[in-house]
Amino acid sequence: MNKVRVSVAGANGYAGITLVNLLLHHPQVDLVELGSRSLAGRPWSEVFPLLEGERSFVSELDPGQAEVIFSCLPHGVGAGQALGWLGAGVRVIDLSADFRLSDPGLYPTWYGVEHPAPQFLAEAVLGLPELHAQDIASARLIACPGCYSTAAILALAPAVAAGLSGPDIVVDAKSGVSGAGRSPSLGTQFAEVQESVHAYSIAGHRHHPELIQELSRLAAAPPRITFVTHLVPMVRGILATCYFDLDVPLAQLEEAYRDFYRASTFTRMVASSPHTKFVSHTNWCLIHLAQQGDKVIVTAALDNLVKGAAGQAVECLNLALGFKPELGLTMVPQWP
Amino acid sequence: MNKVRVSVAGANGYAGITLVNLLLHHPQVDLVELGSRSLAGRPWSEVFPLLEGERSFVSELDPGQAEVIFSCLPHGVGAGQALGWLGAGVRVIDLSADFRLSDPGLYPTWYGVEHPAPQFLAEAVLGLPELHAQDIASARLIACPGCYSTAAILALAPAVAAGLSGPDIVVDAKSGVSGAGRSPSLGTQFAEVQESVHAYSIAGHRHHPELIQELSRLAAAPPRITFVTHLVPMVRGILATCYFDLDVPLAQLEEAYRDFYRASTFTRMVASSPHTKFVSHTNWCLIHLAQQGDKVIVTAALDNLVKGAAGQAVECLNLALGFKPELGLTMVPQWP
Amino acid sequence: MNKVRVSVAGANGYAGITLVNLLLHHPQVDLVELGSRSLAGRPWSEVFPLLEGERSFVSELDPGQAEVIFSCLPHGVGAGQALGWLGAGVRVIDLSADFRLSDPGLYPTWYGVEHPAPQFLAEAVLGLPELHAQDIASARLIACPGCYSTAAILALAPAVAAGLSGPDIVVDAKSGVSGAGRSPSLGTQFAEVQESVHAYSIAGHRHHPELIQELSRLAAAPPRITFVTHLVPMVRGILATCYFDLDVPLAQLEEAYRDFYRASTFTRMVASSPHTKFVSHTNWCLIHLAQQGDKVIVTAALDNLVKGAAGQAVECLNLALGFKPELGLTMVPQWP
Amino acid sequence: MNKVRVSVAGANGYAGITLVNLLLHHPQVDLVELGSRSLAGRPWSEVFPLLEGERSFVSELDPGQAEVIFSCLPHGVGAGQALGWLGAGVRVIDLSADFRLSDPGLYPTWYGVEHPAPQFLAEAVLGLPELHAQDIASARLIACPGCYSTAAILALAPAVAAGLSGPDIVVDAKSGVSGAGRSPSLGTQFAEVQESVHAYSIAGHRHHPELIQELSRLAAAPPRITFVTHLVPMVRGILATCYFDLDVPLAQLEEAYRDFYRASTFTRMVASSPHTKFVSHTNWCLIHLAQQGDKVIVTAALDNLVKGAAGQAVECLNLALGFKPELGLTMVPQWP
Repeated sequence: MNKVRVSVAGANGYAGITLVNLLLHHPQVDLVELGSRSLAGRPWSEVFPLLEGERSFVSELDPGQAEVIFSCLPHGVGAGQALGWLGAGVRVIDLSADFRLSDPGLYPTWYGVEHPAPQFLAEAVLGLPELHAQDIASARLIACPGCYSTAAILALAPAVAAGLSGPDIVVDAKSGVSGAGRSPSLGTQFAEVQESVHAYSIAGHRHHPELIQELSRLAAAPPRITFVTHLVPMVRGILATCYFDLDVPLAQLEEAYRDFYRASTFTRMVASSPHTKFVSHTNWCLIHLAQQGDKVIVTAALDNLVKGAAGQAVECLNLALGFKPELGLTMVPQWP
Repeated sequence: MNKVRVSVAGANGYAGITLVNLLLHHPQVDLVELGSRSLAGRPWSEVFPLLEGERSFVSELDPGQAEVIFSCLPHGVGAGQALGWLGAGVRVIDLSADFRLSDPGLYPTWYGVEHPAPQFLAEAVLGLPELHAQDIASARLIACPGCYSTAAILALAPAVAAGLSGPDIVVDAKSGVSGAGRSPSLGTQFAEVQESVHAYSIAGHRHHPELIQELSRLAAAPPRITFVTHLVPMVRGILATCYFDLDVPLAQLEEAYRDFYRASTFTRMVASSPHTKFVSHTNWCLIHLAQQGDKVIVTAALDNLVKGAAGQAVECLNLALGFKPELGLTMVPQWP
Repeated sequence: MNKVRVSVAGANGYAGITLVNLLLHHPQVDLVELGSRSLAGRPWSEVFPLLEGERSFVSELDPGQAEVIFSCLPHGVGAGQALGWLGAGVRVIDLSADFRLSDPGLYPTWYGVEHPAPQFLAEAVLGLPELHAQDIASARLIACPGCYSTAAILALAPAVAAGLSGPDIVVDAKSGVSGAGRSPSLGTQFAEVQESVHAYSIAGHRHHPELIQELSRLAAAPPRITFVTHLVPMVRGILATCYFDLDVPLAQLEEAYRDFYRASTFTRMVASSPHTKFVSHTNWCLIHLAQQGDKVIVTAALDNLVKGAAGQAVECLNLALGFKPELGLTMVPQWP
Repeated sequence: MNKVRVSVAGANGYAGITLVNLLLHHPQVDLVELGSRSLAGRPWSEVFPLLEGERSFVSELDPGQAEVIFSCLPHGVGAGQALGWLGAGVRVIDLSADFRLSDPGLYPTWYGVEHPAPQFLAEAVLGLPELHAQDIASARLIACPGCYSTAAILALAPAVAAGLSGPDIVVDAKSGVSGAGRSPSLGTQFAEVQESVHAYSIAGHRHHPELIQELSRLAAAPPRITFVTHLVPMVRGILATCYFDLDVPLAQLEEAYRDFYRASTFTRMVASSPHTKFVSHTNWCLIHLAQQGDKVIVTAALDNLVKGAAGQAVECLNLALGFKPELGLTMVPQWP
């Protein structure tokens, strides 16, 4: 089988770097171009010190060279370019938020701008294989969900779909610092973050409408979800701790989860509350159910840059091109 | 004024070490004896490398030498000794869980043993100055609350007392690793903890009955509280994120909090969600209120070894002996 | 080609865990047994939470089932067992120190015991492919060098072999905490290690005679090497900073290094001083040369559990069995 | 005694923040103004969240209000302003590098600019109390040495002064990240620094000429010193590991160190190799001597923001104003 020709825009952020490293080791991928305006003309090895060879970043990708383009550009920047790539017949897998929300009316509220291409929102498929594997397989525009959204949706989808998630869900999510991206800022400086934890975006985080959208599609009525994010002094990992009332036996809920994920390649139920480190540098999402009185506590752990971004994007590539879902994603687990 | 003669039992754990360092700098304290069975006969400088002098740890404290004994012994170990100290006329400030719960029936459930001295439970005063300052002033047995309990109770007490905390409270608490104590274990090894976060004791944490007890005293009916603890890769700090429904304006709740803590020395409302690092190595507890829809999110941050243990114990000493509450506790804030 | 049947003794330490994870993903390895006395009878998934299946740890490996046994047992424990395995015709790759030093007289000095099987010391080959590839290919007993030794020897070998390393070499080495192993101890507790760096074993570290032995073989006379180790608050990684006087142009030394490592699979010269994170979770060793006045500063970075232990052991397996050197070792680089 | 009126320029960097927190707790200091161009008009509480009151940062300090001005401005920025302050009769304690080097010819080499006020270089006194206590007492312009310089000079001064430091000294220094300051940069982002160590400025670090200058004053001839700095994933702390040949018994060297620091308030010899955490958040410098063959290894540990910057500056204030050296610097030691 011929390899698929792939390019990556925005290859010098953390999601982009992780993605490029995965694609370089993917047996069916031929990496054609890496795009970065700030690094245009500079060799790939400036960002990938273990990489040999003489290829350099380009300012703008040439859609004529690629069959698939991954966009890791910032929110709002990539949408315009994506239209051009789609017009040139290239399949697009977008890791930004630009096509995640189906309702164009949500963009001004959450991103402060009118959506530049609302006509594509209906076509875009959310790149969450556990929910949309079939649509992903035939999509030409795949919008990978946010890292927090992936964790929270996977933690709650089976309960919501089974009508067992109660009337009031709380999601308390904790993330490592790499989720904030690679651009230097005071809030992600080592000396500010180390030895500290805090909540942020309490009034409303941009991933909130993603999980509302996806979980509402599974439920008779939109669930009520409170969602608060926290910054934890670690590089990678997201843990979502979810709380809701249960009025059936826990075993019935567990059965619903096992059924929901029976065919899943990378999401799995585990017998004890997962540490984020268990899945560090892997594409796994581990989910655990426990109970305290009538309250269920679901914990879900994943690596925000892999299952929460680049790994899931590769999963989507595999589905879209008919490869095995785990191709290029069987990384060696790493402990400690 | 003469200094008060003070001894410390269990001086080589993290709470004990923190306490001794505070007492050594307290202007009204004369530190008499440090007890540690494992270090008996060894010089203080083995645990306190900056300390000069030739004094050594003793196996058993001599209650005849002290007016106040702080007990940092493990749960279950100190209760028996405390009886002897009380019998010798010494005031006891206990940092263990042995006298925190008034109901002797709770000890077999949460600590696996019958309480060895239930007759003292009625007399013991919980060492949380924000709630029990008057009783602490006259108590001869003070039981300092747990680190998580201190954070959660301070986060919720004003809302519960004002009847504004709704029918269903969730407390998602995050702690640094020093809360697990100084005894080596696999679960607190650097390589296991670094770059990871996880929930633990989900089915029930020992600090849960403490917060139920204290918040029930403030409410018409015992509040329903779900309480889940998490281990975060940092040495110090606790953040409690609390969720409940509010059916009055947030300003009314804020007023209730400000009133409740108006006279408080170390607990204070702040305008943005606190980072645990703001209070690192201090006796402060910072509390913030925010809202997401009808849900209130209260965040409370403190240093688990200071306000959550040794600092609060010194606060109790100050109240019990009529010193100013902040004596010996005006540590230099430290950033970063 | 048939897969090679491999077993691992001491599979529950950090080197053992890393090795098992690598072997599970090695295309030519069939993992037969995992040995651990403390975990005998318990399922593999207790140590490898992502692993499915029902196999359990055994107390003693059955040499009849394996063609190759990796020993990750503690120093002094494995030597006796290795004799039995060798006697049964199994090839042994030992990650402990038991067969690293050729001179039996060194064991009482550095390990406090007489060597139990000095007759095998002459036969054992040091498992450092950059120096001993040919001997490894035909060895039945391979002794992998220590993590510090690997870094320091690779940093210095080309200079010593070329006679350019001056009369007085200082090696200041920094390691992450996982190098101390997985057994809980106070010195590796998170709260003791975080936010701190210190030197240890200053008077003499056990890896010192290994680097003396290996570098002496390359030199006309044994070089004078001072070697001091430091603990750094990170999980993985070793950086060796080496200092010696140079009386030829730096370019000449650089040429000697490039020549020495021209055919090397995993050791490479780089243009700027390497961060240990560049090679985290990989089998690479990166080396950089710089100059300050007449002093050369060589920095070498590797992952102590991969190139410094388990990865190098797999490299040795590949050489011994005629596989490509990088088989099973092309891990996806990971940043951040 | 009246308090001394003190202002601080550049109060929003890490050294400035640490200094302000110390000065706020200094019993003989009345803090008058805090200067910061970027924060002019903003309340102090934006940088000091535990601080109450309504005072705001000013753009330019008014020298008429202060008896002493501490300058924490960046190198090159403060020198011009310092001239104005001195002209107004204010004593200046400068934490930048602007007046550390006596030889104006060194500034173009190390700082890339001609010195703007070379006439003051002869008058400036280096603010290292262990070497210059008497001069500090009468100085009107005190230039505090760099954090690395303080550690390395204190580690080596007694040996150099006694003529026992051999012909070739290597200083391998390790620092926490706060030494790089508070301005966001890629190299100090959490995700880049965590889990990594590397050497930097190998060809020449700006603190190198400071230690050459100071140690040369103590020696018959300028010592040969190689000095390499490393970044360690921790917020605070410097460890300097120093290597030199010794041809007298170690006890003789130890005696020289004890004599040298006998009257020192904050520098002390210790019996085992110091962890930087021992002195975290304190003004102590701990020094240890050990031997490996004929090589002496001196390790010195201090907190880069306290003894390496703000604390030492307060020490200088105390000396200059005739206060006790430890006034305002008896911070509670903190473990863990």
